Amino acid sequence: MRKMFDEGVLERYRNLTRDVEERMINLHPIQSGGRAGDYPGVVQAILRFVDGYSVCDFCLKGRLDLIESPPLCDFHRDIAAFLDMDEARLFPGCRQAQYAAFHALVKPDDTIIVDSLAHYSTYLSAERVGARIVEVPHSGYPEYDLFIDAYAERIEEVKKETGKWPALAFLTHVDYNYGNVFDAKSVGEVIHDYGVPFVLNGAYTIGRMPVSGKELGADVMTASLHKSFASPAPSGLLLANEGYSDVIFRRSSIRGPWSGRNFENKEIETLGCTLPGCVAIGVMAAFPYVVERVKHWDEEVKKARYFIEQLERIDGIKQLGQRPHRHDLIHFESKSFFEVAQKHPRKGFFLYDELKARGVIGVQPGLSKSFKVSTYGKTWEQIKIAAEAFIEVAQKYNIPTH
Amino acid sequence: MRKMFDEGVLERYRNLTRDVEERMINLHPIQSGGRAGDYPGVVQAILRFVDGYSVCDFCLKGRLDLIESPPLCDFHRDIAAFLDMDEARLFPGCRQAQYAAFHALVKPDDTIIVDSLAHYSTYLSAERVGARIVEVPHSGYPEYDLFIDAYAERIEEVKKETGKWPALAFLTHVDYNYGNVFDAKSVGEVIHDYGVPFVLNGAYTIGRMPVSGKELGADVMTASLHKSFASPAPSGLLLANEGYSDVIFRRSSIRGPWSGRNFENKEIETLGCTLPGCVAIGVMAAFPYVVERVKHWDEEVKKARYFIEQLERIDGIKQLGQRPHRHDLIHFESKSFFEVAQKHPRKGFFLYDELKARGVIGVQPGLSKSFKVSTYGKTWEQIKIAAEAFIEVAQKYNIPTH
Repeated sequence: MRKMFDEGVLERYRNLTRDVEERMINLHPIQSGGRAGDYPGVVQAILRFVDGYSVCDFCLKGRLDLIESPPLCDFHRDIAAFLDMDEARLFPGCRQAQYAAFHALVKPDDTIIVDSLAHYSTYLSAERVGARIVEVPHSGYPEYDLFIDAYAERIEEVKKETGKWPALAFLTHVDYNYGNVFDAKSVGEVIHDYGVPFVLNGAYTIGRMPVSGKELGADVMTASLHKSFASPAPSGLLLANEGYSDVIFRRSSIRGPWSGRNFENKEIETLGCTLPGCVAIGVMAAFPYVVERVKHWDEEVKKARYFIEQLERIDGIKQLGQRPHRHDLIHFESKSFFEVAQKHPRKGFFLYDELKARGVIGVQPGLSKSFKVSTYGKTWEQIKIAAEAFIEVAQKYNIPTH
Repeated sequence: MRKMFDEGVLERYRNLTRDVEERMINLHPIQSGGRAGDYPGVVQAILRFVDGYSVCDFCLKGRLDLIESPPLCDFHRDIAAFLDMDEARLFPGCRQAQYAAFHALVKPDDTIIVDSLAHYSTYLSAERVGARIVEVPHSGYPEYDLFIDAYAERIEEVKKETGKWPALAFLTHVDYNYGNVFDAKSVGEVIHDYGVPFVLNGAYTIGRMPVSGKELGADVMTASLHKSFASPAPSGLLLANEGYSDVIFRRSSIRGPWSGRNFENKEIETLGCTLPGCVAIGVMAAFPYVVERVKHWDEEVKKARYFIEQLERIDGIKQLGQRPHRHDLIHFESKSFFEVAQKHPRKGFFLYDELKARGVIGVQPGLSKSFKVSTYGKTWEQIKIAAEAFIEVAQKYNIPTH
């Protein structure tokens, strides 16, 4: 029997707003690189193509990457050239791109090597394809540096234990917890000595810093465009070089046994088409801005280091991860804030409240023992205001600063 | 050696525009139900959340469907109630939702039953999971009606041939080629007699007409929100009822063998999170409009029938598919236009040109032998103007009309 649907609930979907962005300095670690709204050209383009299948006005060949107007066909070639890879396809997120690569390269019960700082979606992609994972360990507290020499050992162990080489080896170029930058090039060389495919996740690098897939020795790369490419969500990218692109972007060969229907132009791992509409347009519109901004990566690292230096003036605050830091994603341990939280009526939420009162958001509400921020794309003035806000909070609660 | 990336190409990504929509009557068959731009509240909400991870300001539980502000948690419950199903998850498209359902329910080498009018992405999803497909045949030209009684025969044949029941039976509620509406309820009853899961694709129904999953006997439903829910792309929906939702939305159990990391709150088939940002917001903002518009489905069918009646006044024009027609997606055979095209210097493109000159677009450029349109969401005045344009083109080329 059908339950009545209560239309009274619909009021909550009217006037959905988000005003924090417009008034605050936002240090949210996953948001700073994906701010499409910072670029008027991106917003304008999204508005023009806001309807569902808007990019399909002139789809004559039945595939997103072959549409000539708007220039999606050019874009697929240009973004591959920009990242120095042979082939590129848009995906609705980095995780879907990772899964597609795994699904194409890994058979159930194969083993794959992953870094132990990988994003959770890497583990879930492995689980979804039914792969066994072997982890490359890290050094633990406080630097959480990856033991990249262990890639060779792990590959040999897999061969010894299973009789087969691992189906792929995976590295997260910059990890999402500590913002550590790993030496992908060295990892690539080790992996290639064994002839194992090297999959590099550029979720926190592509769109932020200059990246050349070939220089890094990547066979396959993935990117999160809504994380690091000033793009609306959901958007991601899968790139592959010769030798792997044919497998990853292989075409359909299924045939309807009664109808004879087949779809030989469609690629299996994209399920035929991945990212129509305003999101694909937003990514293209962001591209010229991104090409420009990656040239200023050194300045972003300087801002991050300045911010770390300022926050470490507070007793009990310590940046975790590699030192000196080489990325805008920063993880702070904050014992002194945690001590305040223990006695505060709002508990850990006091830090969020106090920062918000000073115009700074992005620290996860409730966290005080440790927290992550990103300084990416902020002006020097915003960085200084934000750092000063943390110091003021410390001083308010009598935490020594120096 | 790194190739230089030529920045001169970037000009083509500036000022991406789409002006046809603003001046023309658009009958594009895949676009009419996904026009987010028709609803100012949707556009406004998208603009507010245009940054990548904009919906994650207050993500405290690490999953999209659990975010309370904006009200994604409510939305997942409300949309399930609206469609009379137990559980719902947003996906970046109907095809990804289909694949997720197949991946959860089907093992490689299992057999699944699909209707022979299914969308190509259904075949690709089957291919990607490694399933063998068996097709339910249709009646062919000119009605292309599905032999729904054949579901029972096919299920028994599969059991006889393979020793196993099919892993699922799939029906496309309205097919994308002819706009035929199939009797899902009867199909569901037949399938349930065998205890086989019934997956119903509502890409052309959900968001256009009233749909109750339980009344139709669906165990699983999929929807295309950018096709039929006035939503930006890419957006889709996967719905499941008790008995299947636990399998489809099962949680991760992988554990890092060295790190001990696990992710027990994350769902495998969504890879943890599917649709952040402005697209999820656009879907929510569209919801109140959609709830209202499905009440007027009868009027949409009347418009489609009127349009068919008018175009069939042209000699050699014939609507294919079920008669009387029960959907806004219409496929016309157009022998007389095809004859004109043979002698025309622009060949088949003449039809697109002539219609465009009269303010009507949406017929695929180059097609004249047969073409698809949709009358969905057009006003009666636009329907009349569009029909008149076709008749004028016929008369210009001396095709008899009556």
